[in-house]
Amino acid sequence: MSLSVKHLLGIKDLLPSDIELILKTAEKFKEVLQRPIKKVPTLRDTSIVNLFFENSTRTRISFELAEKRLSADTINFAASGSSVSKGETLIDTAKNILSMKVDMVVMRHSATGAPHFLANHINASIVNAGDGINEHPTQALLDAFSMTEKLGDLKGKKVAIIGDIMHSRVALSNIYCLTKLGAEVIVCGPPTLIPKHIETLGVKVSYDVRKTLEWCDVANVLRIQLERQNKPLFSSLREYSMYYGVSKSLLDAVKKDIVIMHPGPINRGVELSSDVADSKQSIILDQVENGVAVRMAVLYLLAGKKDNLI
Amino acid sequence: MSLSVKHLLGIKDLLPSDIELILKTAEKFKEVLQRPIKKVPTLRDTSIVNLFFENSTRTRISFELAEKRLSADTINFAASGSSVSKGETLIDTAKNILSMKVDMVVMRHSATGAPHFLANHINASIVNAGDGINEHPTQALLDAFSMTEKLGDLKGKKVAIIGDIMHSRVALSNIYCLTKLGAEVIVCGPPTLIPKHIETLGVKVSYDVRKTLEWCDVANVLRIQLERQNKPLFSSLREYSMYYGVSKSLLDAVKKDIVIMHPGPINRGVELSSDVADSKQSIILDQVENGVAVRMAVLYLLAGKKDNLI
Amino acid sequence: MSLSVKHLLGIKDLLPSDIELILKTAEKFKEVLQRPIKKVPTLRDTSIVNLFFENSTRTRISFELAEKRLSADTINFAASGSSVSKGETLIDTAKNILSMKVDMVVMRHSATGAPHFLANHINASIVNAGDGINEHPTQALLDAFSMTEKLGDLKGKKVAIIGDIMHSRVALSNIYCLTKLGAEVIVCGPPTLIPKHIETLGVKVSYDVRKTLEWCDVANVLRIQLERQNKPLFSSLREYSMYYGVSKSLLDAVKKDIVIMHPGPINRGVELSSDVADSKQSIILDQVENGVAVRMAVLYLLAGKKDNLI
Repeated sequence: MSLSVKHLLGIKDLLPSDIELILKTAEKFKEVLQRPIKKVPTLRDTSIVNLFFENSTRTRISFELAEKRLSADTINFAASGSSVSKGETLIDTAKNILSMKVDMVVMRHSATGAPHFLANHINASIVNAGDGINEHPTQALLDAFSMTEKLGDLKGKKVAIIGDIMHSRVALSNIYCLTKLGAEVIVCGPPTLIPKHIETLGVKVSYDVRKTLEWCDVANVLRIQLERQNKPLFSSLREYSMYYGVSKSLLDAVKKDIVIMHPGPINRGVELSSDVADSKQSIILDQVENGVAVRMAVLYLLAGKKDNLI
Repeated sequence: MSLSVKHLLGIKDLLPSDIELILKTAEKFKEVLQRPIKKVPTLRDTSIVNLFFENSTRTRISFELAEKRLSADTINFAASGSSVSKGETLIDTAKNILSMKVDMVVMRHSATGAPHFLANHINASIVNAGDGINEHPTQALLDAFSMTEKLGDLKGKKVAIIGDIMHSRVALSNIYCLTKLGAEVIVCGPPTLIPKHIETLGVKVSYDVRKTLEWCDVANVLRIQLERQNKPLFSSLREYSMYYGVSKSLLDAVKKDIVIMHPGPINRGVELSSDVADSKQSIILDQVENGVAVRMAVLYLLAGKKDNLI
Repeated sequence: MSLSVKHLLGIKDLLPSDIELILKTAEKFKEVLQRPIKKVPTLRDTSIVNLFFENSTRTRISFELAEKRLSADTINFAASGSSVSKGETLIDTAKNILSMKVDMVVMRHSATGAPHFLANHINASIVNAGDGINEHPTQALLDAFSMTEKLGDLKGKKVAIIGDIMHSRVALSNIYCLTKLGAEVIVCGPPTLIPKHIETLGVKVSYDVRKTLEWCDVANVLRIQLERQNKPLFSSLREYSMYYGVSKSLLDAVKKDIVIMHPGPINRGVELSSDVADSKQSIILDQVENGVAVRMAVLYLLAGKKDNLI
């Protein structure tokens, strides 16, 4: 089996069967990661460039580990110190990289649509590692993988996404992914941080965290971007935390064994209290672990290798 | 056959037979890069440090790809965050790196002569990846390779180098390389950007782009350093572009099928218009592709391996 | 044989037999580094993350070379551009890295105790590459290795550590290491730069460089942190150099063949004159060379591989 797409630009473009293939393949790679030797020679003839025009710690390391465990050659490229600045030169940089016969590009960029633009101009497969406020597809895939691991088939499962829905590419990719897999989704946050007409994506909206938690099987709590504090959209961290933060006392009041997720890094005490983040309900570190396996699966499938993956 | 030099500090030091050996070897590596598996085990016992004291995107990535495709171990080192600042400590850093038993050093430095200074003090082979306003030898080699690919033997071919000749290490290395290979060279640009007495290097000078284009088989158009604008040497980009920019209408007027080259990154609309950069006459992306093969050849030859390269 | 510790956090925690095992193992790796092929497959199934929250050139390169020569997969991580800032998030970052199934972490951090904190929270082995003003254990080990190479068994040997003892993690790790190996140690520097009660660590204190040099077999001259100049602790570089700098004329006056060491990078003409740094008495570059072998030994032993190391 193979994917219906050549690039992973967003979950929006995937068929449900693509998502299922990625998750199934990731299971096999997760098994590889439990072995003493966590490395397979699958992509040893493949060069991958990690083009990070935005800062990132965990996503970059996760991709780089995935690439190295597939035995690919990796080249890192960070925006600072580069000849790339904006607009037209992006395509020149991309064409250059392609001319060097690179097989895949993993790209994070602050401009929405930057990887789609590249994909129209170069032959290498592109993996979107986050573009502007659009999508972050591998995050949604690892979230779906982690939910499935915990809850089984997601069809009919109830998932709440809580926080700044408007600016979150994690939220958008999760919405596409979960609805394609048949889950029910509620987005919950302050009215200023929920985009109008989001119901057209097939989700419900709530402004009440407690009711949302009473309803859901899983709560995916998003990171609050601290720099938005004291802007019109956002009053104060204290107020946010009081009304939308997920705390132990709130969860205790809900009396239900909800699975807690967070894409990281956590602002402890803001959107999530430490006792919740570190509780047995939390699968936050499973998400991180699964991220490597899911990214191995994506890279493997996009490379289109015919041979056995192990 | 082997090179007459231990380091690649500049084209100035090479014999014509050295240049020919590098170009011939690069042909074989270019063939390797067309294969599904673009990697050879040739330098798998070799450690190479990339010492970049000046920012660089494409040159660093190109060298790193060349090294990895030769299976060398690579260590990257960027100036920022380093203990190197200036003067005397450069040699200390170098001696340190040598003590760690590194086999080769690829070095870019803003000071003219920095790699030559190192070469006098350490045993590892040094490849100059650009020093001050002196030389950038691998660029000239990949330019010569790309011209040869298009035009055959360069003996008697007419090459124009257009732009800021005074501050360009690409220009100087190209002049040495092309004259050694028997090409005729004209340098063309504003009088303030052409060094006095440059004719002593065996080239002619022109201040008229149109006449230059009418004369040449290949035009290598240099990047204008935008930061020089509004300094005494340079009036405005608009004026530069008007008098020295290479545009489609100018090329049409010339009525001759000139090959267009540029070392990148292009200031589109300044020294080169987009329709020229992307035209069929342009071999700019071939230059980039050939860069990896030429750098593989240089590293392979300097390593002095006796065994078959593939 | 194996180490009594799971992490290398500081020399303070090591048994003398641990130190001896590391030095003995480093001898074998030094022999590997003399071979044409300096690489062994020992850690080819191991992923190591280099977490440098403080700038470093030589230590980072030395570790990275050690890792690559053991065939480990290495991931570099620098503080800038990271999601780590301070306090609580350090542990989140660490847990994340562990979840990605990294086997070892090499860490430099400006906060004293940062690696110890991590070691309490994650399962991967941690190597302290310098924490605040506490320890820099691999430096002390490579210093001990280099002294032993020159002088044989260190029992009863006289070692002077000269400079800013108060702020130097090199000094503290050396004191622990040398006293555990039975050497006699004198620390020497301006009274403002020697911590009170340092004698409790089993060393003597001197404020007179000349007498100290007359006494010792080895002088380990520390780097002066230039940024401390003109603060209460420190008058001027000129004055420091005059009273505590080690110069050729001073060494000639001492009339004794003392071994000169320095952890680098040298402020030539401040704590050490150039003619001393480059003299036959100096083993500064041996220290650098031995650093790679010692770090290979530490990584190898912490990995707990049963098989032959070569």
